[in-house]
Amino acid sequence: MGYKAFLERMGEVNDLLCAKSILSWDERTMMPRGGADTRAKQQATLTVLARDHLVADETRRFLERAEAETANLPEDSVERTICAQVREAIEYHLRIPAALVHKRAELGSVGHHVWAKARAESDLASFAPLLEETLALNREIAECIGYEGHPYDALMYRFEPGESVASLQPLFAALKEGLLPLVKAIGEKEPPRVDFLQRPFPVEAQLAFALKMARKLGYDTDRGRLDLTVHPFEISFTRNDVRITTRVNDEWMPKSLFGTLHETGHALYEQFCDPAYTRTPLATDLVGLYAVGGVSFGAHESQSRLFENHVGRSREFWELHYGELHDTFPEQLAGVDAETFWRAVNRVEPGFIRVLSDELTYDFHIMLRVEIEAALIDESLPVSDLPEAWNAKVEEYLGLDVPNDRLGVLQDVHWSSGQVGTFCNYTIGNVMAGQLFDTATTDPRIREGLAEADYLPLREWLTEHVHRHGRRYTRNQLLEKATGRTLDPAPYLAHLTRKYSDIYGI
Amino acid sequence: MGYKAFLERMGEVNDLLCAKSILSWDERTMMPRGGADTRAKQQATLTVLARDHLVADETRRFLERAEAETANLPEDSVERTICAQVREAIEYHLRIPAALVHKRAELGSVGHHVWAKARAESDLASFAPLLEETLALNREIAECIGYEGHPYDALMYRFEPGESVASLQPLFAALKEGLLPLVKAIGEKEPPRVDFLQRPFPVEAQLAFALKMARKLGYDTDRGRLDLTVHPFEISFTRNDVRITTRVNDEWMPKSLFGTLHETGHALYEQFCDPAYTRTPLATDLVGLYAVGGVSFGAHESQSRLFENHVGRSREFWELHYGELHDTFPEQLAGVDAETFWRAVNRVEPGFIRVLSDELTYDFHIMLRVEIEAALIDESLPVSDLPEAWNAKVEEYLGLDVPNDRLGVLQDVHWSSGQVGTFCNYTIGNVMAGQLFDTATTDPRIREGLAEADYLPLREWLTEHVHRHGRRYTRNQLLEKATGRTLDPAPYLAHLTRKYSDIYGI
Repeated sequence: MGYKAFLERMGEVNDLLCAKSILSWDERTMMPRGGADTRAKQQATLTVLARDHLVADETRRFLERAEAETANLPEDSVERTICAQVREAIEYHLRIPAALVHKRAELGSVGHHVWAKARAESDLASFAPLLEETLALNREIAECIGYEGHPYDALMYRFEPGESVASLQPLFAALKEGLLPLVKAIGEKEPPRVDFLQRPFPVEAQLAFALKMARKLGYDTDRGRLDLTVHPFEISFTRNDVRITTRVNDEWMPKSLFGTLHETGHALYEQFCDPAYTRTPLATDLVGLYAVGGVSFGAHESQSRLFENHVGRSREFWELHYGELHDTFPEQLAGVDAETFWRAVNRVEPGFIRVLSDELTYDFHIMLRVEIEAALIDESLPVSDLPEAWNAKVEEYLGLDVPNDRLGVLQDVHWSSGQVGTFCNYTIGNVMAGQLFDTATTDPRIREGLAEADYLPLREWLTEHVHRHGRRYTRNQLLEKATGRTLDPAPYLAHLTRKYSDIYGI
Repeated sequence: MGYKAFLERMGEVNDLLCAKSILSWDERTMMPRGGADTRAKQQATLTVLARDHLVADETRRFLERAEAETANLPEDSVERTICAQVREAIEYHLRIPAALVHKRAELGSVGHHVWAKARAESDLASFAPLLEETLALNREIAECIGYEGHPYDALMYRFEPGESVASLQPLFAALKEGLLPLVKAIGEKEPPRVDFLQRPFPVEAQLAFALKMARKLGYDTDRGRLDLTVHPFEISFTRNDVRITTRVNDEWMPKSLFGTLHETGHALYEQFCDPAYTRTPLATDLVGLYAVGGVSFGAHESQSRLFENHVGRSREFWELHYGELHDTFPEQLAGVDAETFWRAVNRVEPGFIRVLSDELTYDFHIMLRVEIEAALIDESLPVSDLPEAWNAKVEEYLGLDVPNDRLGVLQDVHWSSGQVGTFCNYTIGNVMAGQLFDTATTDPRIREGLAEADYLPLREWLTEHVHRHGRRYTRNQLLEKATGRTLDPAPYLAHLTRKYSDIYGI
């Protein structure tokens, strides 16, 4: 009875966080512009109340009774795992004084405007004081949270628990060693033609095709829907309502399609979580205060990257589906065959902007940000030296000369929201995707499925090994159970080397 | 400082109730069907937390400090009005034991299914036990709330505070005296032709025309939007985001148009509330736990009826706008002139179903329900005699012989949701609309505006006398300030007599 009452209390926290996510979805898809100010207040209240409900004395009394009642169960039972996670989350929140949380929210609400103006004018000086303040505040928060190695570890905890500056170093070294020569070799080759991707493709037809592909991959539209937004995203309010959005650019057709496949991967993680975990802490990020079933941001990104890149950008996928695409856009794709299309959507082109970068060069954008953020936090890099450090890394990793701060240090929205420590997830997602796809495709049923456009065996394997567990295991426990080892970049590097050697004839 | 902190606390209650309304809007417009069960839990949690936040010891401490700080202000100052309303709402909620609130919610969640099946099969016997339980529970709640005259008064308090069985009796008597002869006289006349309203009108064009008219009347789409739903409604999340919906029936064109004008009236009440009242108790129904600025359900209905009937169904309106409508639907309306169209949308046809009834016979549906509900609550009418009593009143008021309970006592959803006491608002809205429109149109600026399709003077008068005040005054205080007297059916009766005598040549 004590455990059941405790779970119902935690269900209320999940309800509040789901409500906050519904407000966020609505804000970005449906809300008339006049609603912005009061909507921000409503969202802030829901966040504060969810946090207060979690750390309240009454919750702690519920938790103590639940712990007492489940004390004789195995330590790794669902019940004791949930109790331990809730205790850890409560302690995490109680370590950070409310005044600092409030100040970060305040910085975030003024920051966006200051940053947007600075970026438009490529004027770092006008953003620098706010960045200094954001960094100082995050240093202070890191001290409250506590860490063993580097203060940046404390900040990454919310997004990628268990990851640290020390653990990322060998990973990044392996990626650089494997990818730098590949990028260099590709730079000397003739790029594939992409002209036919820049023709006008009608919006409605793009969306209909994208949704058709999402459903083929397993996206359940009885528990989801696809909408159009400026920035694509996936968001869920329990596994029963998992929505995705995409953007349409009629001058670059792949955006809507691969955006949709990416968000579909995120959505499948949520839609196929164990139904028994609905409204429980195993489907709630109690540290980040976000209604999400994925165990870390990196684990979540592994699912989106797997479907976007390993499935959606594979030669096999387009051998199977290009006919349908061609039937949808016969004029735009006149004279273009499946092989040409596949090469086009895999073109490598080092650029300044992270969000526009291709599969192969994306990790360099991430590595440089993580290295720079960690140095800003430990004060080995002063803000005054930031552009120089940034531009030197872009030169080193991508061979490009950054012309201005708008295309350099001012491009990302993250710092203006008060957040530091979120970037590593993208690369961890890429690495995990390679590892999971590699293991999954040792199963002949999955390989046969992929060869016949039957994606159910793959989806079921991922549900069995990833989706259904929600937040039950840590990311590395999950990886070990699924692939026999923790984070390992070898399969990812092998995948990239194989694919790009093929496309570019290296 | 005490008052300011108290207001911020009340702002959080408003935020929670706005969030609940956003979830409700989304549920009815956008939610995939799989989301229903968990959405119901999220909404229930928001309601419970809003109530708990309102009655919490901490809120009462804030209130006491605010009362102390504002004690020297005039009793009718905004500050003291707010304090008094919050105290009253807290006392209201504390009088009703949580177990009863919970039981009503439970009854409501099972009731809909039982009722829907009973209605489909016209089988009152299968719904009767649940109705008995609903009535018993509402009697118990009425005793907790307390009342001076009739237990039904306690149940109406939530929807139409100040109204009572005793106060409704003379109102209903006057309406019956004025309207029964009119309905009878109309029944002996030739009805206007309506065949051209039953042709297929394309959905998109219907919606576009309806929205165009809504904007002409003053609806601000920077702070609102129009969507399509099965049942039309208006809902708001502060004055900055006030949404309306309508339905489209391609076999009965007036539905979308007059549905939209009706909801537009509701929307203007919210959009033009004093901005200073945003997030305060003057824009929050703390008794009904609903984020709404209108002072009572009846006052709200007055605004919808005014724009739907006094403006939208007037001869003047169609003399001005019929050309645009005809241009939109030239084939469907071929050979139909403005006068013929105006007569058609005002046809009187007594029927069994409340929601399909016309302007003139609508009040009879309301009066019979209020009379029957009050008798069920005071146990002068047993459920076993319900169909007989219902059908006798339909015969008396509308001259119709009810063929079965599906078209009789089983038609309304209200009882299945656990609610008793909501019906009188519709008739009070009609009466108020007549009274307000009559006073407003003594102003020549408003009359000239209506004659030139300039609805701004009318909207401004309503904002000045109704909208801007939110929940500052009671409904009767508001009416007295605006029209010099409390609820008075004379202008409404005069309006109906004038219009229908004209149309039917009486």
